[in-house]
Amino acid sequence: MSDEHVNTRIVLKSRPNGLPAIADFAVETAAIPQPGPGEALVEVMWLSVDGFMIARLRVEENYTAGVAIGDVMQAYGIGRVTASNRIDRAIGDIVFGAFGMQQWALDQGSPVGRVLDPAMGPPQSALGILGISGWSAYFGLLDIGQPKAGETVVVSAGTGAVGALVGQIAKLHGCRTIALVGSEKKVRQAIDLYGYDAAIGRHDSDFDAQLKCAAPQGIDVYFDNVGGGHLEAALNAARPYARFAICGMISMYNAEAPVPGPANMALIIGKNLRLEGFIVSNHWDMMGDFLKELGAWHAQGQLKWRQTVREGIASAPDAFIGLFTGANMGKMLVKLA
Amino acid sequence: MSDEHVNTRIVLKSRPNGLPAIADFAVETAAIPQPGPGEALVEVMWLSVDGFMIARLRVEENYTAGVAIGDVMQAYGIGRVTASNRIDRAIGDIVFGAFGMQQWALDQGSPVGRVLDPAMGPPQSALGILGISGWSAYFGLLDIGQPKAGETVVVSAGTGAVGALVGQIAKLHGCRTIALVGSEKKVRQAIDLYGYDAAIGRHDSDFDAQLKCAAPQGIDVYFDNVGGGHLEAALNAARPYARFAICGMISMYNAEAPVPGPANMALIIGKNLRLEGFIVSNHWDMMGDFLKELGAWHAQGQLKWRQTVREGIASAPDAFIGLFTGANMGKMLVKLA
Repeated sequence: MSDEHVNTRIVLKSRPNGLPAIADFAVETAAIPQPGPGEALVEVMWLSVDGFMIARLRVEENYTAGVAIGDVMQAYGIGRVTASNRIDRAIGDIVFGAFGMQQWALDQGSPVGRVLDPAMGPPQSALGILGISGWSAYFGLLDIGQPKAGETVVVSAGTGAVGALVGQIAKLHGCRTIALVGSEKKVRQAIDLYGYDAAIGRHDSDFDAQLKCAAPQGIDVYFDNVGGGHLEAALNAARPYARFAICGMISMYNAEAPVPGPANMALIIGKNLRLEGFIVSNHWDMMGDFLKELGAWHAQGQLKWRQTVREGIASAPDAFIGLFTGANMGKMLVKLA
Repeated sequence: MSDEHVNTRIVLKSRPNGLPAIADFAVETAAIPQPGPGEALVEVMWLSVDGFMIARLRVEENYTAGVAIGDVMQAYGIGRVTASNRIDRAIGDIVFGAFGMQQWALDQGSPVGRVLDPAMGPPQSALGILGISGWSAYFGLLDIGQPKAGETVVVSAGTGAVGALVGQIAKLHGCRTIALVGSEKKVRQAIDLYGYDAAIGRHDSDFDAQLKCAAPQGIDVYFDNVGGGHLEAALNAARPYARFAICGMISMYNAEAPVPGPANMALIIGKNLRLEGFIVSNHWDMMGDFLKELGAWHAQGQLKWRQTVREGIASAPDAFIGLFTGANMGKMLVKLA
């Protein structure tokens, strides 16, 4: 249980240059906020850490509302309503919202917030398979990737929280699936646990040759979580009219100096390729279909799902940073209460 | 007039590494071919040289039918039918087709070939404003770029054969237009001749700052003929949900070693950008609308059009190479007969 007398929270201390470090964050305490008119008080139970949150830390990417120095670090979470001045929030409701890295938050009824249906399973699934991760996989693969049965789908970080679902959803749609992963252990996991037809480790000597071997006819859909050399190999392997859903570019965040893009970008022209980036928080309106279809697959046990759980608010910065070093197996969560 | 007893033609002698050079081509003569069943003989009058043809010279880009060593270099052309065993070609017809860099060609009725309507103006317009150039501009801007009135459209190589039309069509659609060009002279031409609202020279010290000044709210559509630093600046300037029509990447062809892509590719994600490459020869089926609408604008004198003409088949390699060094003003053509 959290300390019921103070609100422990994680604030941004300095703006990271490249990968964020522990020293960029501070743990501080404040009074538990009091809900005003139109507000509910939420005791945060679970926090999600998500790679795309790094954009909120960068000045140059301030087209999304960024985190100011001294502000609470942004994060989606699940919590329990303990007091409410809102007609749509009752005490005891389990709610999803952008609560930030803190133990107590005010729910002001933002468009992203919602009361969870207890029938949908454990509430933290709303932070993963039925939340940002599942929604990223579902939207990116189906809406942008437009896979057809029999086509070949390649997923970078193919055993990550998002990637593992992309591979499984593609398989449910009758596609041949190939994972690009970061270790030999993950190669086995990709095939044995998530049912990929093939998996290629990051350290395999010749990425292009491995991909050619796994997909001799080329690839139709590429779901990118990594960027860099993975994207370059996918451009080489792409068939004409292939679709690239660009969900993340973890390799591009990994250095203090800018990392050059792929040297084979001109293939986009001759192959008539389409690359489309997305952050699902811009597409909440389309989430209904997703919850229905993925929820049904999930309920029928058709989707494998793994998570890594850290305990306590103080572990949140380390959990976030771990996303960029491969510390997680599946979805990374922080359990608070 | 061409020599009526031989067929002078340009063949590929060696595969260029980077930019093609004169020495990669040879001028040779052969007998004038005789039309067999289902073939017509065409005396080629005009040849088009097009930047995207460079892809046909590269082994690694052999998803389009490439040019083999010793083969006639590919090119679109306009010619006069002088003998015919085809029901759809009469002697005297002026025809468009993929005739290659040669004085005489056989018209075998490929899907791209067609008999030109004399009412559409001088036949060579079918190689430019009413041909590949116009069709690239129209398809790329409208189908991929999806510009709306009031939006800002940026065009690299904005005074080139394709770019100048993109700028003018965008203007006819009520957009604000900005050209990226290669010289001070072209800055003036962009504004005075083609009606751009602003133009930025390649050698301006700070591309990002100039673009910010010309488009303080950011850009909605980017039509790329250049790639490299131009594409990088456009990614920086893009507004959320901007569309990038990737028509050419001349800067990427310009070196023997691979040129890295933009270092800011991750912006594709956070800004929800869409990049789509195209070669219009894959979209002949949609050309009807284009000919109707662009033909009407052209007939009404609403579109400015410039061309650079070289004389004689032997000048074709130099004309082609000149595309990559900025030797052309507008559309580059070779006049044969």
